Amino acid sequence: MSFTKNIPILVLRLVALAATVSATAVMVTSSDSATIFNMKFEAKYSNTPTFKYFVLMNAVAAGYTLILLFFPSKSSYGHFILVLDLLILVLLDSSISACLAIGQVGKKGNSHAGWLPICDQVPKFCDHVTGAMIAGFAALLAYFLILLYSIHNVMNLFTLTNN
Amino acid sequence: MSFTKNIPILVLRLVALAATVSATAVMVTSSDSATIFNMKFEAKYSNTPTFKYFVLMNAVAAGYTLILLFFPSKSSYGHFILVLDLLILVLLDSSISACLAIGQVGKKGNSHAGWLPICDQVPKFCDHVTGAMIAGFAALLAYFLILLYSIHNVMNLFTLTNN
Repeated sequence: MSFTKNIPILVLRLVALAATVSATAVMVTSSDSATIFNMKFEAKYSNTPTFKYFVLMNAVAAGYTLILLFFPSKSSYGHFILVLDLLILVLLDSSISACLAIGQVGKKGNSHAGWLPICDQVPKFCDHVTGAMIAGFAALLAYFLILLYSIHNVMNLFTLTNN
Repeated sequence: MSFTKNIPILVLRLVALAATVSATAVMVTSSDSATIFNMKFEAKYSNTPTFKYFVLMNAVAAGYTLILLFFPSKSSYGHFILVLDLLILVLLDSSISACLAIGQVGKKGNSHAGWLPICDQVPKFCDHVTGAMIAGFAALLAYFLILLYSIHNVMNLFTLTNN
């Protein structure tokens, strides 16, 4: 694969790195407290397993992306890297979807289950989580495009050499 | 691509079809009720947006898989089908992860947010949701393997024709 063909992938990996690092940092620093009925109520990411999972997965994706940026891009590793990219896409997707589900309950509550919305009490916490999710979504999109581009390249090369 | 090469994909698609249809059916039929403090409390999937999303995504995946089983497998569509498979993987992954996050709150609650666990009150509902998630996970795994197998095939063909 020529160097010019790698530029879009490189750009997308840089976007993914920035997005996953931001998502991790914004989620880790999310914290807010409220006093309701004389009870101090503190919201932070580590109270919710889903948010801890989000931080872990974004940190893993950031680490993986960083390693790949310094990795010599030999086409002999192409197969392996494509599979790892697919795995990172699945992990990022799952972490963001899980956060979105919890975030929806935090915002709207679920009256049938008796779960009250909490975002009115801890707006700063909810804003941080929303920000982290937007960054995470950008990383997911970058990885989706990396995969599309890789598949497209492989398929085109196959078609070209086959004709 | 020869017919024998398509057999694993065909088997995986049949597994995915069975799993997505089961996941949809089991989730839709999940229902239980409990009476707490003289208040009747009914749990059903349509009360939770995440579970509605799960049903929709599994129905979409089932429909897509069914269409593909009757689709003539021409290699000229290979590129397009690989991208659609990737999209279905992302959607299934996101629906299961979102359900898992809500299911975890339903099972364990979240004391920091004041959300009480509900599975002790409506065990039948929780069992159904768990069953639907297991079926959904089987479908996700089938689609992951379909993608791995397709990528592997394309890469191998490329390597063979290139040498």
